[in-house]
Amino acid sequence: MIASTPKPPYYAVIFTNELTSDTDGYELTAEQMVSMAELQPGYLGHESVRNGLGITISYWESLEAIRHWKSITEHQLAQELGRSRWYQRYKTRICLVERDYGFEKEP
Amino acid sequence: MIASTPKPPYYAVIFTNELTSDTDGYELTAEQMVSMAELQPGYLGHESVRNGLGITISYWESLEAIRHWKSITEHQLAQELGRSRWYQRYKTRICLVERDYGFEKEP
Repeated sequence: MIASTPKPPYYAVIFTNELTSDTDGYELTAEQMVSMAELQPGYLGHESVRNGLGITISYWESLEAIRHWKSITEHQLAQELGRSRWYQRYKTRICLVERDYGFEKEP
Repeated sequence: MIASTPKPPYYAVIFTNELTSDTDGYELTAEQMVSMAELQPGYLGHESVRNGLGITISYWESLEAIRHWKSITEHQLAQELGRSRWYQRYKTRICLVERDYGFEKEP
């Protein structure tokens, strides 16, 4: 569930969103977009949680990889459907991950 | 729920985590840490969702502001309790937000 990402630097796209009440087709499209993102050059992983508010973070090797994924036709169509039907509001933040560290409890 | 942040650049701390089954005291401490973070110099906002996996993102003016918050005594004690009891694993990523954009549906 926590993405295994390489040593920084790499990029993160933080997508924070609130849905409308019209969520027909949303889950299926979201799953398709994750499956498609995983196939793109430069994709490193993602983390996603929803509980009312939704936060999806995808990790990428470069800005070029992010731009390429954003331009894919199916992804553009999904973004248009998102704005016309599913999303009440969202914010997208493009970030350079400069440093990271983790913890795992001993078994 | 979506943080209102200023024009980039600014910093984001992405904290992705999974809890153990020993969550006594966790919620209260987490709320106290949010209240305390909001009072720190350079704090810009935060977004937090849990649904099994937890993602909390806090936004800051500078690396210096992040370092200062990390060093606060009460925060250090909470981090120690987190590692000894509450967190099965976590990953913290320090990021420079280079660009952002948003959408809000017309009423």
